[in-house]
Amino acid sequence: MKAVIFDNRIQVMDRDIPVPADGEALIKVRVAGICNTDVEITRGYMDFRGILGHEFVGEVVGCARGDWIGRRVVGEINLGCGSCGWCLRGMSRHCPNRTVLGILGKDGAFAEYVTLPVGNLHAVPASIPDRRAVFAEPMAAALEVLQQVRVDPDWQVLIVGDGKLAILIARVFLRVGVHVSVIGRHLRKLDLFGKSGAATIGIGEDPGAGFDMVVEASGSPDGWKQAVAAVKPRGIVVLKSTYHGDVNWKSAPLVINEITVVGSRCGPFEPGLRLLADSAFETDDIIDSVFPIAQAEAAFERSQHPDSLKVLLRMTPMDELSGLSE
Amino acid sequence: MKAVIFDNRIQVMDRDIPVPADGEALIKVRVAGICNTDVEITRGYMDFRGILGHEFVGEVVGCARGDWIGRRVVGEINLGCGSCGWCLRGMSRHCPNRTVLGILGKDGAFAEYVTLPVGNLHAVPASIPDRRAVFAEPMAAALEVLQQVRVDPDWQVLIVGDGKLAILIARVFLRVGVHVSVIGRHLRKLDLFGKSGAATIGIGEDPGAGFDMVVEASGSPDGWKQAVAAVKPRGIVVLKSTYHGDVNWKSAPLVINEITVVGSRCGPFEPGLRLLADSAFETDDIIDSVFPIAQAEAAFERSQHPDSLKVLLRMTPMDELSGLSE
Repeated sequence: MKAVIFDNRIQVMDRDIPVPADGEALIKVRVAGICNTDVEITRGYMDFRGILGHEFVGEVVGCARGDWIGRRVVGEINLGCGSCGWCLRGMSRHCPNRTVLGILGKDGAFAEYVTLPVGNLHAVPASIPDRRAVFAEPMAAALEVLQQVRVDPDWQVLIVGDGKLAILIARVFLRVGVHVSVIGRHLRKLDLFGKSGAATIGIGEDPGAGFDMVVEASGSPDGWKQAVAAVKPRGIVVLKSTYHGDVNWKSAPLVINEITVVGSRCGPFEPGLRLLADSAFETDDIIDSVFPIAQAEAAFERSQHPDSLKVLLRMTPMDELSGLSE
Repeated sequence: MKAVIFDNRIQVMDRDIPVPADGEALIKVRVAGICNTDVEITRGYMDFRGILGHEFVGEVVGCARGDWIGRRVVGEINLGCGSCGWCLRGMSRHCPNRTVLGILGKDGAFAEYVTLPVGNLHAVPASIPDRRAVFAEPMAAALEVLQQVRVDPDWQVLIVGDGKLAILIARVFLRVGVHVSVIGRHLRKLDLFGKSGAATIGIGEDPGAGFDMVVEASGSPDGWKQAVAAVKPRGIVVLKSTYHGDVNWKSAPLVINEITVVGSRCGPFEPGLRLLADSAFETDDIIDSVFPIAQAEAAFERSQHPDSLKVLLRMTPMDELSGLSE
């Protein structure tokens, strides 16, 4: 099978179809999405080597539990040990012994086939086409904020960053009446926020201060400083960005203004699928382009273009995919 | 009057007795405490110049409201503008236009007299001697954690740092059954924690990981790294230290482990006084030494000794103070 391998550089190579471990399903990948984390991995983040990719939709083609065969699925990316306290409390996302699909010790989904434990799979309702189902993982990450913070609909929220995760987070907040502002660097992307009902702050302009909550989703250390400067005393900064490298900061403003910082990562898939089943929740306008897997290097290049949004990799012929055009 | 002035160095100088502004009381200071923040100011923190000191107990000797004359008082250190949204919501501690006693734009309490708005004052019950009342401000800072975080008595809490604020925080938690561990660098101080019922971690030993909450009160950037390493996924790090200078950190562990960081500063005085009125809450063993104000330079030197705990400055003769010995 074709697979996108990172080993100091990105290459499309031929690999054997993986053999599912006990309890795992073999999944034929249909479409996968390139995330900023994938790009950060190519810069050294997590020291990962192997098949990249953790956002995908595919079809189960092999499974000891026959009822899964033929089902279209998305998959949670953390593979817990199943026996530690975290796993037993249903929190395998934080299992200390976990592997993580395409990120830590487990080959990912930028390949024609991928394996995942059946417990990680979520069946995709027929009403959700592939081009929307592939957003299940980032949608869950956006909803994670609501699992961690009681977001008051009366809040003024600033989102730092105008990328693909940022727009999902903005749209989640906008659905419950929150006043959302966004600060970014790319007119094309900011335009999406504006059309969604968010207030866009002019490029290079100061967003001001006093926001009840600031979500740092810029993927850059600068975003952290902007977030701390913009949040009100006793406000909340949600940290979504992971990047390779350090941040330099003063602790004093955090203490003096009694700011709460909430690190936020993977989230709940089922609510994500429920939102994706609602056609009023727009995702098509977040898709930048679709590349066949053989052109993964070009896809990665495109995904790093400042103006680019979600770049998809397809592992099946275009005409088999529901509603996608190249 | 004698006053302890910081102007690139610490000097005891003669100054005029301050004239209370409208709504302020004139207070004859009896005893004041040296806080780590005072020491950090002498290293450049907050760029403050003037009379230092924000922990004190004194007697009102001048006030337009006659009922305050003669009362023994402690005082909140933030002077709000009284008219902004924060002040109107009773949150003058976060007024953006505030001054702060001995820290920001307001001469402090290391002097024979100090002025403060009557609204900042709290009368000290006769049952609380001066040597305990002088702890009202740091006690409020310790209780602030309970105002910000719902502390579960079943938690395992690690305190990073063995200083004077750390021991107050430990004792507050121990009173509600929390399991408290402490990591520090000074045998004499760690001994106090042990006697209070906390588990002390050997100097240089690894405290381990998995703590539900870690309170960073070490006053040093190293403490931050220890705190993040010791807290469990989805746990809480309370940041109490303010220091001059930067911290270098990676955002990834915060995001991956979904840690919440809570900056924490000044707290509620009345609960602090209620705890100080309970003689079972020990504070005498935190007092390191008492210096007359004329010897403030020696007092500051002593307070920076690694083994030192709370150093007090007295502005009245020793025999007038309740229960203090030099």
